[in-house]
Amino acid sequence: MSKQQIGVIGMAVMGRNLALNMVSKGYSVSVYNRSPEKTQALLNEHPDEKLHGTYSIEEFVQSLESPRKIMLMVMAGKPTDDMIEQLVPLLDEGDILIDGGNSYFLDTRRRNKALAERGIRFVGTGVSGGEQGALKGPAIMPGGQKDAYDLVKPILTDISAKVNGDPCCIYIGPDGAGHYVKMVHNGIEYGDMQLICEAYDLLKNILQLNAEELHAIFADWNRGELDSYLIDITADIFQNTDPETGRPMVDIILDTAGQKGTGKWTSQSALDLGVPLSIITESVFARFISAMKEERVEASKRLKGPETAAYDGGREAFIEAVRKALYASKICSYAQGFAQMKAASEEYGWDLDLGGIAMIFRGGCIIRARFLQNIKEAFNRNPGLQNLLLDAYFQNVVEEYQGAWREVIAAAVSRGIPVPAFSSALAYYDSYRTERLPANLLQAQRDYFGAHTFRRIDKEGVYHHEWNGTN
Amino acid sequence: MSKQQIGVIGMAVMGRNLALNMVSKGYSVSVYNRSPEKTQALLNEHPDEKLHGTYSIEEFVQSLESPRKIMLMVMAGKPTDDMIEQLVPLLDEGDILIDGGNSYFLDTRRRNKALAERGIRFVGTGVSGGEQGALKGPAIMPGGQKDAYDLVKPILTDISAKVNGDPCCIYIGPDGAGHYVKMVHNGIEYGDMQLICEAYDLLKNILQLNAEELHAIFADWNRGELDSYLIDITADIFQNTDPETGRPMVDIILDTAGQKGTGKWTSQSALDLGVPLSIITESVFARFISAMKEERVEASKRLKGPETAAYDGGREAFIEAVRKALYASKICSYAQGFAQMKAASEEYGWDLDLGGIAMIFRGGCIIRARFLQNIKEAFNRNPGLQNLLLDAYFQNVVEEYQGAWREVIAAAVSRGIPVPAFSSALAYYDSYRTERLPANLLQAQRDYFGAHTFRRIDKEGVYHHEWNGTN
Repeated sequence: MSKQQIGVIGMAVMGRNLALNMVSKGYSVSVYNRSPEKTQALLNEHPDEKLHGTYSIEEFVQSLESPRKIMLMVMAGKPTDDMIEQLVPLLDEGDILIDGGNSYFLDTRRRNKALAERGIRFVGTGVSGGEQGALKGPAIMPGGQKDAYDLVKPILTDISAKVNGDPCCIYIGPDGAGHYVKMVHNGIEYGDMQLICEAYDLLKNILQLNAEELHAIFADWNRGELDSYLIDITADIFQNTDPETGRPMVDIILDTAGQKGTGKWTSQSALDLGVPLSIITESVFARFISAMKEERVEASKRLKGPETAAYDGGREAFIEAVRKALYASKICSYAQGFAQMKAASEEYGWDLDLGGIAMIFRGGCIIRARFLQNIKEAFNRNPGLQNLLLDAYFQNVVEEYQGAWREVIAAAVSRGIPVPAFSSALAYYDSYRTERLPANLLQAQRDYFGAHTFRRIDKEGVYHHEWNGTN
Repeated sequence: MSKQQIGVIGMAVMGRNLALNMVSKGYSVSVYNRSPEKTQALLNEHPDEKLHGTYSIEEFVQSLESPRKIMLMVMAGKPTDDMIEQLVPLLDEGDILIDGGNSYFLDTRRRNKALAERGIRFVGTGVSGGEQGALKGPAIMPGGQKDAYDLVKPILTDISAKVNGDPCCIYIGPDGAGHYVKMVHNGIEYGDMQLICEAYDLLKNILQLNAEELHAIFADWNRGELDSYLIDITADIFQNTDPETGRPMVDIILDTAGQKGTGKWTSQSALDLGVPLSIITESVFARFISAMKEERVEASKRLKGPETAAYDGGREAFIEAVRKALYASKICSYAQGFAQMKAASEEYGWDLDLGGIAMIFRGGCIIRARFLQNIKEAFNRNPGLQNLLLDAYFQNVVEEYQGAWREVIAAAVSRGIPVPAFSSALAYYDSYRTERLPANLLQAQRDYFGAHTFRRIDKEGVYHHEWNGTN
């Protein structure tokens, strides 16, 4: 009996669609799922000689050519560890496990190391693009042993999204690098979504626009520099009507955001690395506040907002100002996210290629956008670029748009419309470009109450002052 | 030979001052330090029959009356674990270890459990007040076995700060509760310090005030509702002159803030608990940005700010508006910090008394302030208060001050002065009091690309929509 080229474990929607994607590219694929019904259902729906159902782990492992290539598409955390423990005794030295789930990067580091000691190569890979991406071409971010990646590279690049013929899949780096980059991708996705929500909230509340008008604006934005998957689907969303009530879908959806934790991980890692990641973090907090629905309903009855007059500026001018505020804020969010990847690369010794990462983000994944090409070009111009804001393209955009950005935030602030992500993006821009921040006072306070010492502006060294005062 | 009532290990400044504090209250205290020189130096400087130097762990343990009460004032992390391992074989069942360091609360949970299994009671306690507080009366936040606390309560309450005769020390709760509350205290301290820095930055840059004028303003503020230790020492700081240059001390201190990690832990815990803690987190990020001094100097040469005219409003009116913005922001920061403690109390089963915690924060510690009395009273009125903003006192202040608060942020935003903490505080207020946030769009996006489902405004249940669109 001939052996299959790759195996996929876990026939939930992502695993199933990845297997079908592989088959569509001509690979022979063994599939396995804990409950056999899902495997059987897949084979019934997609009968194909390249798709090989197996009904025990042993049968699955025996069906694969050597060195075996096994993609795990099971739940992150303990289920992944459990499956690895089941598999390893059945594997041969040099076999390759590929974890395509949303695993925490420190788990991937641990697994890579522990499995290497047992002779098994482990590739932890981010896969982004949702259901449709998995089926038709996701962005793929593999990390682990380079020699192991080279053996699975043909399959992963073949099934990945393509942009101008380039596959959205490159080797990211050792051990947890791939899952780390996927985590930051998801954090950036949180930021993008919150920024879009703030733009929507401003347009809806200040200009009193309806779903049809909002559709037209987002569709228009999607033809310019904001061109991206998330802006595109937002335009689509405003055109969808609830079949039950006939109202726009957005208007009948409850305003309580869910989340699965990767945004939170991104913020926690930034805090560990000492990297300011304020925009994504405000976006995570905004989801938390949205989830406090009952408390907000109660608070809304008691806490008054400002007295404000109706907006009397030009409608088109305000829409354009919001567009500029959104783009400038988005640039700051990516500047923070890429600075975080740079810091992680140094901390963990990954040697990340940030330009290459921008390139693979251009297609397949949720944050795919035209402006990732600008990020790629920025790193082409300067591979060691410390911050996107220091690249001429981004510098020019933000400088030119800052007037509109500031006006939009001032309008929101005076009207009581919350814009945590827009505001934190601007505060980041203004902090980053400020030579002298007020942290000198903070250092004085720390030295006053805790003798924590400080540095001076006029000479090297560490100093303590004997403070005179009433305390 | 008579035995001593309590022992203190670790003669760095905090341990040493706590031991002297105990002696001053009439307790007999054994002290021990790894290097004997520090112990000897302390005894030479403070000869007192109540202060008993010991020069081996065995001698130290043998010198204590039973059940032994041993306070560890050593570095958090591994040094604390190492010292515990050295001590435990020498202890008897029922002896009490008190960890007064800045330990991570999950370490304290772990130690409490592991030591309980070995018959040793473990009290993890926060101690706040810096050097002077340790000597003259700190705020003390003990967590662990209640019966163990009861045995050390007389000593801890005697050495603690007093406010109107009440000791700033109450039993916080089981296992890690004391260190958790101390961690949040420190996070709140980060927020307070950043808010003061933003007020300083605004006054200095918009009104062009010098140190003497700033001193007068902060001294004046300290006579009103902002009355607090940090405002008081800030007023003092502006009066201090550098002996070398004759310039105000603040002006010669480098603007790169240091930190020791407890602020970061507070933010990371909030992210785990699903609690919005934006103000403290922005304050942590502000310290990170301040530390990127070289990069900021470079960025300041390249990234332009807005074109702004000189401020033409009234000087006194602006000072008063900044004061109001500072107080309103501070209220939001405490609302977030107390909401986090409430969530942690539920998550970890601690049954925290938030009013009692506000009471002990009133004295001894770095964040001590007149307005903690208002917090205490809010919890007296309603022990189950969900959020400080829902208390009548705080609601009235924030509603009344919001006009000034919004003007100050708008002035900063238009002039390019970063106010991340002021802005995030206002965004929190505006989000919290908003019945309908734009998260409905975010849920639509999540359902569009990932079939994550959503809830509806008009009926119970979880729904998915088949989205029509180009994607």
